[in-house]
Amino acid sequence: MDVKEIKDPSFLKNMSSKECAQLAQDIRGFLVDSISKTGGHLSSNLGVVELTIALHKVFDSPNDKILFDVGHQSYVHKILTGRAKDFATLRQYKGISGFQKLEESEYDCWEAGHSSTALSAALGMAIARDLNHENYHVIPVVGDGSIASGMSLEALNQIGSEKKNLIIIFNDNNMSISQNVGALTQGFSRLRTSKPYNSLKSDMKNILNKNDIGKSVLAGMSAVKEKFKESVVDSGLFGEFGLEYLGPVDGHNIKDLVHILTAAKDHDGPVVVHVLTRKGKGYFPCENDSSGSWHGVGPFDPQTGKSLSSVPQGKLSWSEIVSETVCRIAKTNEDVVAITPAMICGSKLEKFFAAYPTRSFDCGIAEEHAATLAAGLALSGKRPFLCIYSSFLQRAYDQINHDICRMDLPVVIGIDRAGLVGEDGATHHGVFDISILKGLPNIILCQPKDGEEAQNLLATAFMQKHPFAIRYPRGNEVYSAITAVNPIEIGTWTIYNQSATAKCTVLTYGPEVDKVLSKVLSNNLPVQVVNCRFFKPIDSKMLQQLSLENKPCIIYETDMLEGGLGTSIIEWLCDHQIMLKVHRIGIQDKYITHGAMNQIRKEAGIDIETLFNKINELI
Amino acid sequence: MDVKEIKDPSFLKNMSSKECAQLAQDIRGFLVDSISKTGGHLSSNLGVVELTIALHKVFDSPNDKILFDVGHQSYVHKILTGRAKDFATLRQYKGISGFQKLEESEYDCWEAGHSSTALSAALGMAIARDLNHENYHVIPVVGDGSIASGMSLEALNQIGSEKKNLIIIFNDNNMSISQNVGALTQGFSRLRTSKPYNSLKSDMKNILNKNDIGKSVLAGMSAVKEKFKESVVDSGLFGEFGLEYLGPVDGHNIKDLVHILTAAKDHDGPVVVHVLTRKGKGYFPCENDSSGSWHGVGPFDPQTGKSLSSVPQGKLSWSEIVSETVCRIAKTNEDVVAITPAMICGSKLEKFFAAYPTRSFDCGIAEEHAATLAAGLALSGKRPFLCIYSSFLQRAYDQINHDICRMDLPVVIGIDRAGLVGEDGATHHGVFDISILKGLPNIILCQPKDGEEAQNLLATAFMQKHPFAIRYPRGNEVYSAITAVNPIEIGTWTIYNQSATAKCTVLTYGPEVDKVLSKVLSNNLPVQVVNCRFFKPIDSKMLQQLSLENKPCIIYETDMLEGGLGTSIIEWLCDHQIMLKVHRIGIQDKYITHGAMNQIRKEAGIDIETLFNKINELI
Repeated sequence: MDVKEIKDPSFLKNMSSKECAQLAQDIRGFLVDSISKTGGHLSSNLGVVELTIALHKVFDSPNDKILFDVGHQSYVHKILTGRAKDFATLRQYKGISGFQKLEESEYDCWEAGHSSTALSAALGMAIARDLNHENYHVIPVVGDGSIASGMSLEALNQIGSEKKNLIIIFNDNNMSISQNVGALTQGFSRLRTSKPYNSLKSDMKNILNKNDIGKSVLAGMSAVKEKFKESVVDSGLFGEFGLEYLGPVDGHNIKDLVHILTAAKDHDGPVVVHVLTRKGKGYFPCENDSSGSWHGVGPFDPQTGKSLSSVPQGKLSWSEIVSETVCRIAKTNEDVVAITPAMICGSKLEKFFAAYPTRSFDCGIAEEHAATLAAGLALSGKRPFLCIYSSFLQRAYDQINHDICRMDLPVVIGIDRAGLVGEDGATHHGVFDISILKGLPNIILCQPKDGEEAQNLLATAFMQKHPFAIRYPRGNEVYSAITAVNPIEIGTWTIYNQSATAKCTVLTYGPEVDKVLSKVLSNNLPVQVVNCRFFKPIDSKMLQQLSLENKPCIIYETDMLEGGLGTSIIEWLCDHQIMLKVHRIGIQDKYITHGAMNQIRKEAGIDIETLFNKINELI
Repeated sequence: MDVKEIKDPSFLKNMSSKECAQLAQDIRGFLVDSISKTGGHLSSNLGVVELTIALHKVFDSPNDKILFDVGHQSYVHKILTGRAKDFATLRQYKGISGFQKLEESEYDCWEAGHSSTALSAALGMAIARDLNHENYHVIPVVGDGSIASGMSLEALNQIGSEKKNLIIIFNDNNMSISQNVGALTQGFSRLRTSKPYNSLKSDMKNILNKNDIGKSVLAGMSAVKEKFKESVVDSGLFGEFGLEYLGPVDGHNIKDLVHILTAAKDHDGPVVVHVLTRKGKGYFPCENDSSGSWHGVGPFDPQTGKSLSSVPQGKLSWSEIVSETVCRIAKTNEDVVAITPAMICGSKLEKFFAAYPTRSFDCGIAEEHAATLAAGLALSGKRPFLCIYSSFLQRAYDQINHDICRMDLPVVIGIDRAGLVGEDGATHHGVFDISILKGLPNIILCQPKDGEEAQNLLATAFMQKHPFAIRYPRGNEVYSAITAVNPIEIGTWTIYNQSATAKCTVLTYGPEVDKVLSKVLSNNLPVQVVNCRFFKPIDSKMLQQLSLENKPCIIYETDMLEGGLGTSIIEWLCDHQIMLKVHRIGIQDKYITHGAMNQIRKEAGIDIETLFNKINELI
């Protein structure tokens, strides 16, 4: 069928398993075709086609609440709830989001982007439902990477004691973005290979047939479980949380899925349905991808699976520049160890992990633990490089504060994906790290303007003994390995195009420095440009000089205005009773949507045109 | 013996179990006597007397690393490592800390204050040890409340897969600060009541006797475990993490403790030693305290257990004022529900929990989950009151950002213990919340100046539909229930002692408002005082007025200067191109130590004398 014709999931109710299987095939074709043009999360969605069909066949959304943890695997849900027609706009400015969004559809009851929030939210909804004397199902869908994260485990702990009706879909593809790590993985594997739910089917059917009423289905289930206790109902981790467990079930068999979900629907209390899925199912290039390179993709050729986007000649991604550099430092400094919370691939740490396997630590989706692990290593003489996306670093704020900064430990924090990230949108923009980290005593916080400066700042970071955070954006940058390190004095900025006749000064950071400078030079504008590479400490000498010059200043920031570079500058000016005319450009007090960088930067008012309009007012 | 004579723990090595038992009694006597004078953490320390003796008898600290999770139960460790003589200064300014402190002793290898960090740090140390080819034991001591927290579980997940030598002491007293909650508690109870390690002793002894070498002890252990697999080695949660499990053992029997720790010492890989202790052991008033009121205490009469400190007539603690008020609001608004991460007693929520048991949720030590649970409840029409200490709220920064503020949900956050807290020191001072929360879109952040304003602000909070955080300090305040609510317009401040002849304006917040005002009035000073009750949004009308008056302003803050009230004010001034002479008083860029409030406020430069010196300069 043409999936773009789908208005709502009601048509599924009367579909046979065979028809559903055909639908699954149509949806897969549509997903590959559509995402090959727009980019997006492919393999996780290919993995949940049958599961999502079965969920909408058995449950009654939007009355029943289906929450996709993280939400990047909600594309099939979007298709079944009438949004296939909008897929050409997926993740584009003003188009549909790559995650569940409340404002997008009444079928989206939860929003995320960060992992492991669905169970907590679902428990909240189930409690509210019961307090309100309402009657609906709450169904969080959580992956095996995400369920092993601390926040999910905290939620399971309360879910197991509250005993509210809650149907937890444990979507087990044996992967996070890339391969799963951690001891729980083994327990999950044991459950995976336990006697499958499938073989229980005939018994189950007999029991179900004998009873018409839901309650008795439950009784039947219990009886079956008793009967097969030894071989089947090893409920593993879930048993420890006091949760009933159903499964495992083949996540690509709609008939079995419908069967088990129907049983779960009539269960009293919280129940975990263990669904075995295969990431990338049905599309050959994804099916055997264990590195996670098909997790999120740009446009590609659907026939060959070859990417249509490429990194320009002579450039590398910022992630690669940083990890290449840390690799090089680690070669001469044996104390350097690398830590990532499940982002080996995203942060381009593959090379480090291959070169230094005993010095590489993938903690899984566990930002809190990762930061304090770094603290323990630093206290014992190691030089940890904690590599973490800006927006996920928010999870480790307390550990960076309480464990790393309070004890003034020499952890180098690589803050990947700093600034707006584009298509992933509000949950993924890394625009808060400056404001939350700058407030911490002992930390040094900086951002390089280019690949060369990145290498020198990283070298500097490992030469000193305080917490040192270096942030860098998504995207590519010119790179060639430096032959000798030029350590950078901490807290120093550099001024370019300096001139007594300059009419204003632009203070900025990161890749904006060269962009602004080149436009200034090519237009021969009387404008000085300062590379404010350190957010903390700031360059008070330079500020003193600028205040003597007394030219108007524009602080051009590409992150949250509040608590950003400009804040530090005007705090300094205020505390030194210096009156200097300062204009600030940065992200105002709101969350920024998804879309192409140029479009969302424009919306956020931090595009280069806005800057040069301001410059033109002043010169 | 006189425990003040103890220099280091080496004397324990040759002590018999009987002598150790006598020592335990001496230590208990000393603890009760000493803490009855200084206040401090009593019951958790009384619970680990024998355990700490056994640890220091079996292990070789400081070579071996003993990490106390949180650290409030490290008093016995302090006594055994030569610090009993300093106990008169416990938690006092420049005295010894109530937690482990690196700078205090070479025997303190880790610092905390927040829960659940020890396992991550210990794994870091164990990894570093092996990379450095060193040879020592790493022994984290973790309570049953703390081990069920997400961060601990994240650490266990990696500990189970890294397989480093690590001896995890699971100090199971079946309580957090007050009674434990959550499903894991039941699993722990099952382990507690499983066939105790004790009964294995004879078998174990036989095996140990046959083998002199450590490795064979392990082999013996395994044999025993195999033998008793069904009845004894139910390793519960720990088994799911792939961890070896020894126990449970009576935590007040030194002989058994020494025995099991010796076995653990020779174990290869990570092992959990399950130690059953009783909080408050040996001191009658604490032993049966299940509310947690003996967790942290002020001075008391050791004979009767009666507190020597009392709340002044007509006053209540801020926690009580807030919870009383929320109770009252909940009476007429059935949608109000209360959430606490294990702080029913600390946040004085007992009355709410008793009055509204179905609307009260203790999440355990799980700040992350608690915040997102609130989001789920709010999305379903409830009006959650999320009550959380300022310094522990740091753990939920991402959830408040990503889940509550991004979706603009009407969660009322009660930020308890805001500002400096005194004796608990750097880890517990709640001085960062303003700076991290103020940067979040959609949030409203305020602090009442007194009990009446607290009631009106809380009423206001539940009348509106955005995230609303209200912070309040440790300590007591005049309280009488208001008879009618006066909703407070959001973002408004109030000026007192306003006069055309005033020579300066003091802008401040919280209880400082009345303190400053009363000193201004009693000294008849030409000073206006502004109650800046909202940190966000700020009162721009008032700022406009002040800038027209053009009198010098002092912003008097009692939290971190960076990112505080003053920052918002000077950001506003800068963005409106208004030049106003502003002086800022607040906590400079450093962590503040423990001690009496007047002393640490002086050290931090935020005492009222500093303010009035500045005022006198200006008038």
